[in-house]
Amino acid sequence: MFVILTYDVGEKRVNKVRKHLKKYLIWTQNSVFEGEITDGKLKKCLSELNHILNREEDSLYVYEVKSPKFITKTIYGQEKNIDELFL
Amino acid sequence: MFVILTYDVGEKRVNKVRKHLKKYLIWTQNSVFEGEITDGKLKKCLSELNHILNREEDSLYVYEVKSPKFITKTIYGQEKNIDELFL
Repeated sequence: MFVILTYDVGEKRVNKVRKHLKKYLIWTQNSVFEGEITDGKLKKCLSELNHILNREEDSLYVYEVKSPKFITKTIYGQEKNIDELFL
Repeated sequence: MFVILTYDVGEKRVNKVRKHLKKYLIWTQNSVFEGEITDGKLKKCLSELNHILNREEDSLYVYEVKSPKFITKTIYGQEKNIDELFL
């Protein structure tokens, strides 16, 4: 399935969360990751994230679409690059 | 259709962009808006945004899904509130 994952986490945890998500999805912008992922891998990713996140402060939104053919993406302005994020 | 809109814009333009998007969509998190919107209204929204954004610096991602039945959303941790954003 295709997944869009957005997060809003405390500053202390941002890098850890990004590094973790990079293993499973593609970074697109600021606090947004996306990509094709299996159900099993998504569950693994989220269960590992659970140990990093502070549930009292952080939030994570996961949008799941059964197939990428149901979704279209349009980019306006600059397309950000992953290198920029990890400089 | 159902739309997820994420943005990464210069600090000077953040409030203007948020206020604008609030007219058309629902704020969910940090730099993410979502909602049901017609094709016509989305075009109007984006054409107006075009006057606010700096295309050299800012980026806007628009994910369109034909119907909300194709997408499921799961929230982990805190659900953010629009009031928090505009305090």
